[in-house]
Amino acid sequence: MTNLKLITPRKLSGFMELPPYKQMVLDQMIDKIKKVYQNASFMPLDTPVLEYSEILMAKSGGEIDKEVYNFKKGDTDICMRYDLTVPLARYVAMNENNISFPFKRYQIGKVYRGEKAQKGRFREFIQCDADIVGLDELPLVADAECLALVDKVFKALDLKILNHISNRNILFGYCEALGYKEKTQDILTILDKIKKIGKDNVIQSLLQIGVSQENCENLTNIILKEGNFDIILSQIEGLCNNDIFQKGIDELKEISSYMKAMGVDEKSYILDIGIIRGQNYYTGTVFEAMMPDHPEFLTVCGGGRYDNLAGFYTDKKMPGVGLSIGLTRLFDLLDQNNMITQYKLTNIDLQIIPMGNTLNECLQLQNYFSNNLVCDVNYENRSFKSKLKEANRKQIPYILIVGEDEVQSKLYSLKNMFSGKQWNLSKEDCKEHILNNRI
Amino acid sequence: MTNLKLITPRKLSGFMELPPYKQMVLDQMIDKIKKVYQNASFMPLDTPVLEYSEILMAKSGGEIDKEVYNFKKGDTDICMRYDLTVPLARYVAMNENNISFPFKRYQIGKVYRGEKAQKGRFREFIQCDADIVGLDELPLVADAECLALVDKVFKALDLKILNHISNRNILFGYCEALGYKEKTQDILTILDKIKKIGKDNVIQSLLQIGVSQENCENLTNIILKEGNFDIILSQIEGLCNNDIFQKGIDELKEISSYMKAMGVDEKSYILDIGIIRGQNYYTGTVFEAMMPDHPEFLTVCGGGRYDNLAGFYTDKKMPGVGLSIGLTRLFDLLDQNNMITQYKLTNIDLQIIPMGNTLNECLQLQNYFSNNLVCDVNYENRSFKSKLKEANRKQIPYILIVGEDEVQSKLYSLKNMFSGKQWNLSKEDCKEHILNNRI
Repeated sequence: MTNLKLITPRKLSGFMELPPYKQMVLDQMIDKIKKVYQNASFMPLDTPVLEYSEILMAKSGGEIDKEVYNFKKGDTDICMRYDLTVPLARYVAMNENNISFPFKRYQIGKVYRGEKAQKGRFREFIQCDADIVGLDELPLVADAECLALVDKVFKALDLKILNHISNRNILFGYCEALGYKEKTQDILTILDKIKKIGKDNVIQSLLQIGVSQENCENLTNIILKEGNFDIILSQIEGLCNNDIFQKGIDELKEISSYMKAMGVDEKSYILDIGIIRGQNYYTGTVFEAMMPDHPEFLTVCGGGRYDNLAGFYTDKKMPGVGLSIGLTRLFDLLDQNNMITQYKLTNIDLQIIPMGNTLNECLQLQNYFSNNLVCDVNYENRSFKSKLKEANRKQIPYILIVGEDEVQSKLYSLKNMFSGKQWNLSKEDCKEHILNNRI
Repeated sequence: MTNLKLITPRKLSGFMELPPYKQMVLDQMIDKIKKVYQNASFMPLDTPVLEYSEILMAKSGGEIDKEVYNFKKGDTDICMRYDLTVPLARYVAMNENNISFPFKRYQIGKVYRGEKAQKGRFREFIQCDADIVGLDELPLVADAECLALVDKVFKALDLKILNHISNRNILFGYCEALGYKEKTQDILTILDKIKKIGKDNVIQSLLQIGVSQENCENLTNIILKEGNFDIILSQIEGLCNNDIFQKGIDELKEISSYMKAMGVDEKSYILDIGIIRGQNYYTGTVFEAMMPDHPEFLTVCGGGRYDNLAGFYTDKKMPGVGLSIGLTRLFDLLDQNNMITQYKLTNIDLQIIPMGNTLNECLQLQNYFSNNLVCDVNYENRSFKSKLKEANRKQIPYILIVGEDEVQSKLYSLKNMFSGKQWNLSKEDCKEHILNNRI
């Protein structure tokens, strides 16, 4: 190989690759999320990363979005999945006869978007989704179930969130009542910017598309309503006489009562009429969870109700409701802001350091300790001093020094690397000591 | 959406997609493997699925293997990884200054090979790899560590295996000693087929490339040697006078002594000179684990020692040793052969069925039970009878019937769906009963 020209090792930009001690914490977060989903009786699904382009691009009539990774293999036109919702739709439509509804599944997996690379944006990222899909109908209590799950999952992650909940029918109905039914989508797009560009600019934009001055006030007033469910609902109830608007009010009331029954922490959610969400497949409940101590993180979890999940693939009506956590981005934010306190450079509890010709004895000891502890043997051909330095650097809590004398006496030098204290102990006492003192 | 032409939902062939109750067991297997790797002080790494083609295709000088999924995004030539070893090589070369060696990492992830679709072959499959990478040198005890890991991981999976171990230097040295140094690769390729095509056909092929009749006998004799390490080593030791051959013998002896010290079950491995392994990057220890009760499963885990892992990317010498389990194929074999006994159609311990207007009370009860049990509420608008039938079909172990009377009395009807027995109990007694009787 010496004649080969070396290739500079590099990875694609926009792809997260963590050092193992950080990956360990990310994996622990995944395990916690998984456990919450499982305890809420969601079952796992793992769809392929690759799908027929025709399937993934159904909503754009087969046209490939420029963000999507797309290629041909032989004659097959293939896309990498860009979310977990479209594959779910494909799955339920394909297996509708074998699924028992409501179908509660979670999927934690990587999705791909070839977006312009920029800080905090990833082209490969982990989504943690949980959805409930019904056949023909899905009671509103399913929405509350997903909202309760948001509370539970962030409690398990030990992250304080505030879930901003709304119902699309409120603004749909209100626009209709004000006489702007045809302009609803344009109005919502403008209103969605209010926190970014401010009320005055929003009113300018609304005026430009023909909304009256008075209705500009009405719309910007309602969109800024946020707070306790009962209070906000009492403020907006009766604002207009419209069936769709009233449906939104009724659904929010019903969901609120379920959430109370479910014991969802009332400090963890509010009604926020300003929650619009981009995806136009949402038809009722919508929500975005944020971290009140870090509003700059923006939405860390979002979701809502969609009344026709698999409409591109089947005639059957499959209403669903779900939530999604963009874990790669969330982890990156926590890491960048030094909010991860669990980092440990190693998972080793005890490292055995052989001195002289004691390797086989050290391996026997490792075997003894390994039932209860993560124990390795430092078998490198390096000096004791450099091994000690390395154990220190790695923050290994305990080392066991095993020389030929120790093998004879069966008493080994156990050293606590944090306190510097050292003991001569039998292997049984070593194990007991470490187990009793392990953090 | 009613005017849309429906798109038939389908997935790409060669991509495994399990129903959730099977996925649950596959996930449990992954968790078990992960735990064994972690307990052996390996740390997790998660490299991207996509890499620069130049990096992944370094060994073929940039030429794209036809099995590899490859595409362009803008000007970037991208490949999907086809194994986890090349990304590991890229990672260690890229991060050599930040890594503390020996670097022990595991990676469990999907890899992609666009092979011809056939039964039991997957285009997307999970590999579970663990490797130890050294800088400049890596003591032979690392090989034994990986071999011990094979034993542990299959014990954790409750699968009986026999690990066939060899060392490439044996056959390299033997070929050299017989005067066929230049023909070594051809000879090994032919010998590798002996179990498929039989000894006579192998001899025919060897004769054709110029091996003498006597040496055909010698080669087919040595290649068929398998059994207890001490016995086989004593049989082949002294077969020839060659340094490389002797190096193989010495390494096997050393590894054998480490494995004994590590307490590896001696019934779980043999020395098998016939283990050649295709990949030409192996330089010493090679192994393939098989299931003795299912020889038709072929190799379920393999690995070995490679003396220059990252030679395409760095001048530094990084010897490594590792193992890999092709989990998707293994799971498929176990499933196809009805060897998976853990299947449960649901993870629900208790399902609450509301009767009449008791949904909110049911949600409160669910909240109460959820700390200890997986409990859901069947809130569907269906008859009690059909709910009972569904609970039966799903094999939910317990149901709790909550009508308006039960809400009044605070005594609920708990029914064991397997025995058919039924009790009237307080919620506390329900919980205790289920916890005490849970399988």
